[in-house]
Amino acid sequence: MRAEIVAVGTELLLGQIIDTNSALIASRLAEIGVDCYYQSRVGDNHARIVSSLRLALSRSDVVIVCGGLGPTQDDITRDAIAEVLGVPLDLNVSVLRTIESYFDRLGRQMPESNKRQALVPRGAEVVPQMKGTAPGLICNVGNKVLYAMPGVPYELEDMLDREVLLDLLKRKGTRETIRSLIVRTWGLSESKLSEILAPEIERLDATEDVTLAFFASRMQGLKVRATAKGRDEAEVNEKLEIEKAILESTLGDYIFGYDSDTMESIVGELLYDKGATLSVAESLTGGLLASKIVSHPGASRYFLGGVVSYAREAKREILGVRDLPVISSEVASDMAAGVSRLFSSDYGLSLTGVAGPDSQEGKEPGTVWIGISAKDDVFARQRFLGGDRERVRWYSAMSALDLLRLYLKESPRFYA
Amino acid sequence: MRAEIVAVGTELLLGQIIDTNSALIASRLAEIGVDCYYQSRVGDNHARIVSSLRLALSRSDVVIVCGGLGPTQDDITRDAIAEVLGVPLDLNVSVLRTIESYFDRLGRQMPESNKRQALVPRGAEVVPQMKGTAPGLICNVGNKVLYAMPGVPYELEDMLDREVLLDLLKRKGTRETIRSLIVRTWGLSESKLSEILAPEIERLDATEDVTLAFFASRMQGLKVRATAKGRDEAEVNEKLEIEKAILESTLGDYIFGYDSDTMESIVGELLYDKGATLSVAESLTGGLLASKIVSHPGASRYFLGGVVSYAREAKREILGVRDLPVISSEVASDMAAGVSRLFSSDYGLSLTGVAGPDSQEGKEPGTVWIGISAKDDVFARQRFLGGDRERVRWYSAMSALDLLRLYLKESPRFYA
Repeated sequence: MRAEIVAVGTELLLGQIIDTNSALIASRLAEIGVDCYYQSRVGDNHARIVSSLRLALSRSDVVIVCGGLGPTQDDITRDAIAEVLGVPLDLNVSVLRTIESYFDRLGRQMPESNKRQALVPRGAEVVPQMKGTAPGLICNVGNKVLYAMPGVPYELEDMLDREVLLDLLKRKGTRETIRSLIVRTWGLSESKLSEILAPEIERLDATEDVTLAFFASRMQGLKVRATAKGRDEAEVNEKLEIEKAILESTLGDYIFGYDSDTMESIVGELLYDKGATLSVAESLTGGLLASKIVSHPGASRYFLGGVVSYAREAKREILGVRDLPVISSEVASDMAAGVSRLFSSDYGLSLTGVAGPDSQEGKEPGTVWIGISAKDDVFARQRFLGGDRERVRWYSAMSALDLLRLYLKESPRFYA
Repeated sequence: MRAEIVAVGTELLLGQIIDTNSALIASRLAEIGVDCYYQSRVGDNHARIVSSLRLALSRSDVVIVCGGLGPTQDDITRDAIAEVLGVPLDLNVSVLRTIESYFDRLGRQMPESNKRQALVPRGAEVVPQMKGTAPGLICNVGNKVLYAMPGVPYELEDMLDREVLLDLLKRKGTRETIRSLIVRTWGLSESKLSEILAPEIERLDATEDVTLAFFASRMQGLKVRATAKGRDEAEVNEKLEIEKAILESTLGDYIFGYDSDTMESIVGELLYDKGATLSVAESLTGGLLASKIVSHPGASRYFLGGVVSYAREAKREILGVRDLPVISSEVASDMAAGVSRLFSSDYGLSLTGVAGPDSQEGKEPGTVWIGISAKDDVFARQRFLGGDRERVRWYSAMSALDLLRLYLKESPRFYA
């Protein structure tokens, strides 16, 4: 079974927006083992959309179209599909009601133009719109199938995961269901992670029920996505639970969270569970550590605030740091102790180091000290981080939160 | 003249990377007035690359291929082009020398595989590789043309701007050169900006020498890109100077910078020119304002540091803020004055407000007060910002820096 993606929109051809939808669809197709040999983009032009769809249907079994299902005169994917199928467009009353009730909830009158979105090529199945006003379409074309989804990325992702992939799996001849689990890690390089997981990937290759894929999500650590296929939800969930347990026993505390967890949400919930408060002192990160912490909603339950001590005098006068080399264990410890004293917080977390591009105090860019102060405990740990100024900062903030996480969890890795 | 883009790479079809090259090429084509009706992506498969190129050449005058010019066995774009042209591949000695000297500079031996990159379809013109090891190709196909460029984005951008667009302009029948100027604005909505510039765009439409395009760069304000064409550099530069003067007189202080300027670099240089220092106090932005400021290299010349006063007690005890509603002019003023006292800085800049999603003190999300303290001056200004929690924060930081910019420049808009 071969699939092909056609993205519709003149704004794509003009380079005004980048086509992320095709990559999303393609990665999901790869996960369920459907080949995708071609992807193309076409503008909002009736004749060219029609010819692109005909070409795609001539060489692929499955055609996934995205974009051009909006309410404006530019949105002509529906019309092009109807022409390719050789059928008229009918007004679908149930779709229309959903669109009307969408506007009702916003307390607004439905613009007349949105009525166009209720037009459905005769014979097509409708994929209900959950996030926006554009419904999706499933059209049988002989023994082939054409799916149409809206181009708004979060509407598309919802429809893809909720309906299209499942329908595709059904057509593939297997009555399968599919689900993924994202395992988020920090502290391992990509090569180290793949080395550790190599035996497990080899084992899984023989079963084909579960697959593992890596994603380097630049600033948020390495993700491992486990994807399971099975007869029904229960079977898939069980497979994922087993895989989760295997990954946990293999990767241990390098795993900091799952799915939509972030480092700051995990550390935040650990603090909240202890009923503890935190303040931070940072120099090289210049506020990034604090801003990461507050990006978790509910941070006000445990986060009191921070000091950005960029100048040396600020470290001394506001945080009571000793007059020693700034990139040092002592200064990191003093900063952590000083800020927790200033804010009267249970924990203090600090960062001092060299963001680069130049060395400082003879220390290379990427040299970072993380300080932690707790009730009867003040200490610092060193890290060497790679990358440019921006990366060193981001990695520093992540590393500081990760160290606090391991400390709060009393992880053996912390004491190693 | 119609162009078409073919991006080569199995990683694109698997959705492992997002195709940003096609959008870049498309936007440049649009700027020089070359239509682009189709874009497609194809994997590293000889037969399918050949058929994609043949299809593209059958319906377009200009085909731009990117990707598949690397040194590995997967990189087969060269071979596919040779087949389409019906010519053999020859080893180009000058290309080979350039690749060898590239490795020499790195102090490494050239891997044997890189020799493949010196293979050139007979009759093709070589575009010298300035940034990497893959040369570009210009191939005449009857009265049509096929360009091939490497898929590495910065290598591609370099080659596109340096050679391909100029070659394309020549073929278009004009011996033109082209340059762009980015004008960066803050404080106007997209609709307001386009309303203000409508007469100028209309005037330019009649001349065709200079075009204006808008870009909403999400978190960094609205950009206007002025692109000028002309016979030579001198003419193009003169046209851009004239256009710059027109935009300055039309947009005034809504323009904060040009090209790679950022809000923080502009404010930083204003402070540095005055020999003045700055500290910041922030609550809803949680460190983002400070981290934006330090992202300008050289911030240590004027930035002393900041306080993230997330908890109410921190505002009172560390900054000496009065016990009043937190989202208020008084608290913003007290924060600015308090932080400049604490850090002994010439200026203090503060932010207090509601990031959302919930209201606070009866104030809607997006309600923000910015405080500024200077020698004999402490005051605050209110802003109402749209968007979700993340946007409100980012816009708050930008708005605070923008207010300080207008104040430091003694802009009439500041006093309006």
